Amino acid sequence: MTSSALQIPAAIKSSSSAFFGRLPSTSNIGSSTVSPSVRKNGACKCVDAPPAEQKTGYKTRVTRNANMAKLQAGYLFPEIARRRTTHLSKYPDAQVISLGIGDTTEPIPDVITSAMAMRANSLSTVEGYSGYGAEQGDKKLRAAIASTYYKDLAIEETDIFVSDGAKCDISRLQVLFGSEVKMAVQDPSYPAYVDSSVIVGQTGLFQKDIEKYGNIEYMRCAPENGFFPDLSTISHVDIIFFCSPNNPTGSAATRDQLIHLVQFAKDNGSIIVFDSAYSMYISDDSPRSIYEIPGAKEVAIETSSFSKFAGFTGVRLGWTVVPKELLFSDGFPVAKDFNRIVCTCFNGASNIAQAGGLACLSPEGLKAMDETIKFYKENTEIIVDTFKSLGFDVYGGRNAPYVWVHFPGRSSWDVFAEILEKAHVVTTPGSGFGPAGEGFVRVSAFGHRANIKEAAKRIKQLYSFWNKQR
Amino acid sequence: MTSSALQIPAAIKSSSSAFFGRLPSTSNIGSSTVSPSVRKNGACKCVDAPPAEQKTGYKTRVTRNANMAKLQAGYLFPEIARRRTTHLSKYPDAQVISLGIGDTTEPIPDVITSAMAMRANSLSTVEGYSGYGAEQGDKKLRAAIASTYYKDLAIEETDIFVSDGAKCDISRLQVLFGSEVKMAVQDPSYPAYVDSSVIVGQTGLFQKDIEKYGNIEYMRCAPENGFFPDLSTISHVDIIFFCSPNNPTGSAATRDQLIHLVQFAKDNGSIIVFDSAYSMYISDDSPRSIYEIPGAKEVAIETSSFSKFAGFTGVRLGWTVVPKELLFSDGFPVAKDFNRIVCTCFNGASNIAQAGGLACLSPEGLKAMDETIKFYKENTEIIVDTFKSLGFDVYGGRNAPYVWVHFPGRSSWDVFAEILEKAHVVTTPGSGFGPAGEGFVRVSAFGHRANIKEAAKRIKQLYSFWNKQR
Repeated sequence: MTSSALQIPAAIKSSSSAFFGRLPSTSNIGSSTVSPSVRKNGACKCVDAPPAEQKTGYKTRVTRNANMAKLQAGYLFPEIARRRTTHLSKYPDAQVISLGIGDTTEPIPDVITSAMAMRANSLSTVEGYSGYGAEQGDKKLRAAIASTYYKDLAIEETDIFVSDGAKCDISRLQVLFGSEVKMAVQDPSYPAYVDSSVIVGQTGLFQKDIEKYGNIEYMRCAPENGFFPDLSTISHVDIIFFCSPNNPTGSAATRDQLIHLVQFAKDNGSIIVFDSAYSMYISDDSPRSIYEIPGAKEVAIETSSFSKFAGFTGVRLGWTVVPKELLFSDGFPVAKDFNRIVCTCFNGASNIAQAGGLACLSPEGLKAMDETIKFYKENTEIIVDTFKSLGFDVYGGRNAPYVWVHFPGRSSWDVFAEILEKAHVVTTPGSGFGPAGEGFVRVSAFGHRANIKEAAKRIKQLYSFWNKQR
Repeated sequence: MTSSALQIPAAIKSSSSAFFGRLPSTSNIGSSTVSPSVRKNGACKCVDAPPAEQKTGYKTRVTRNANMAKLQAGYLFPEIARRRTTHLSKYPDAQVISLGIGDTTEPIPDVITSAMAMRANSLSTVEGYSGYGAEQGDKKLRAAIASTYYKDLAIEETDIFVSDGAKCDISRLQVLFGSEVKMAVQDPSYPAYVDSSVIVGQTGLFQKDIEKYGNIEYMRCAPENGFFPDLSTISHVDIIFFCSPNNPTGSAATRDQLIHLVQFAKDNGSIIVFDSAYSMYISDDSPRSIYEIPGAKEVAIETSSFSKFAGFTGVRLGWTVVPKELLFSDGFPVAKDFNRIVCTCFNGASNIAQAGGLACLSPEGLKAMDETIKFYKENTEIIVDTFKSLGFDVYGGRNAPYVWVHFPGRSSWDVFAEILEKAHVVTTPGSGFGPAGEGFVRVSAFGHRANIKEAAKRIKQLYSFWNKQR
């Protein structure tokens, strides 16, 4: 697992889209100033995006979807990739270390890849070949997910919908809910919740002064409230996206907090979409599933993923739980509509990936996944210790592979640029996850050990003055 | 490839959703009569669908998406699966042969599965591991698709978006277009076009008397117009879904017809979504891509798939071409919005499936795929000859793995039931693909050779009277 040589990830990829938060109007570091063209239209050129302007004179008469036009900013991670590229052209010999995007770096345990290879090979045999699988996923895998992660929680195999990942399921859920619902989201949070809400037409326009879209309830999660929102200030909402352990703050909600959340949903008739993609990183007794809370089945959907458990970010496998007990106001089961969406808009996860998922949930697979997680958690400790030793206020880390570092009074983008410029380390600016992320950077613990140690060393050099100033 | 023993597919799966067409109010075959409960609410219980009624008293206050509620009927293929199950319980020893759902049956060539197995194994090595790939797909695969299928058509690597399948991309395109566009669809056609249109709110209610949703232009494709719609009767539409070779009729549009279609789109400012999932089955000189038509890049998106080429129905891999030249009325490139959708609602196709896709496009892979297609085309000939020899009017088959058989004056569902009851062969009732499919059944040529031959024999026995009656 531990690699002795310093290994540099090949590329930062254009992952999830995000609003940028407050882009710096000026930067103290020349090379990382946002170019005028980026600021002007508020959108960034994606790594692979086609050029905006075309020479052709012909235009169709099809009106562009007004919801797409609402999306104010481009993609957080491609912008970071762009800056990394700019940085590399300035410092061609720099050994840039990426602790930015939360992308897994360690090999997948052999017990899991062998199962996938075997499944792939079997597809060239008459006995082993299979075509379309069930859109809802392989029966055995659904059963294994139910028995592994929802044992004693009365979640059944038929409540589980296997998918190609939680991000994809989030969008499918938004399509299911449609444009007439009002959503709430932790601020800061994983950008896909907000962006998919904009795309399906649930929101108003982006309000530049407050860096928020209209008709979304941003639930502030900050140190002063222990990263759990003050629900008493929330107006009526239909759908509450809630990620625990949270991306980016790394904070896991306690049992009491989740009891409070479920009660709030019940009192208000809301549906919680609980994102537990990082639950296997929980070290304390915070619930790993929303269904550990009594009554949650009547108010909550849960979406999760093999990405951060088993390193399946590229293999693509996740699942969503929609309990039969969850009903719309007219009594119609949400699961029936989700099933319809899955059957109409999806055709099942790759059969090879599903074979890998099944291997993950074997005793050997679970043990191997535990070891990978343990490795990343050791990385996390190194990062937490590094920033703590420098005197920073550090959050997260304990229950998540993300460390949330406070730089009070500073722009997240400025700090991001500073760390890149002076330490050749890529982080993620907190404001990219929502306005309440301003003043923070997220440091990911996914990385080879040598890289983590080297990044820690450089950050210590960069901020050794910090402690002295305080 | 040819299997000597009679092999029965394990199950018919709950594939794409569909409207049922006109369900028989009475049936001449008792066992296949639609149960009252099915007819009453117009929806069928999906194979894996949760039960409709729950005992719990609690309901959320979230209103069910009115567009989801518009979906009148359940899923065509699950209903067929249900009837097959009923049939099997009546005839437990029957060797039922499925020529229903268009699911591939032949093993994937070894050159392709080996590449996938190798990629899977490499993921357990430090050198071979990779996490998130680009949402748009692996650069090499995009380049290979462009150079293999769009050589000399000026489609570039960056115009190609690799995906987990055409069905999924159809929904992503609908989300991109939003609720304010009006779509047109071939009647009959693959049900996902209409259903996804309903889901995103483009349509009116289902009009039971004419078996159509409001605000969709159904373009009738029948023997009398050579299965190419009379475009002069079409009112203004924004988006034209056009599948060639068509599923279910098996008819491929000629070059002149596609020139006419592109000109129609240009005159009306419409966008064509051209589904070429079956293009490798074309035997004559019908265009394999819409981009063979001059000017198509300014009016057309193309979606395609490895499913029917390489037997990837379970592996999941497809692509969509969105040329840079295609612009909304305000001049904004459609590709930019599609890129945003892909980055926000998707996270790339499985890296293992993409390795398989790359192997498909190697010289050996292309040769192996050709042989599989040749095999299915031989199946098609057997089916065409069978029905022709019985005196039926038979369409399709030449350029597609589907045979479209006319039973004038009869209900598609009655014919389906008759063939199942008397020959133990599953087909698909044409009315399931749209009202103009009434009176037809679709017979799929995907199957082991022994099954195709046996099905042909049974159908000959069943309809030997047919020729004599005419």
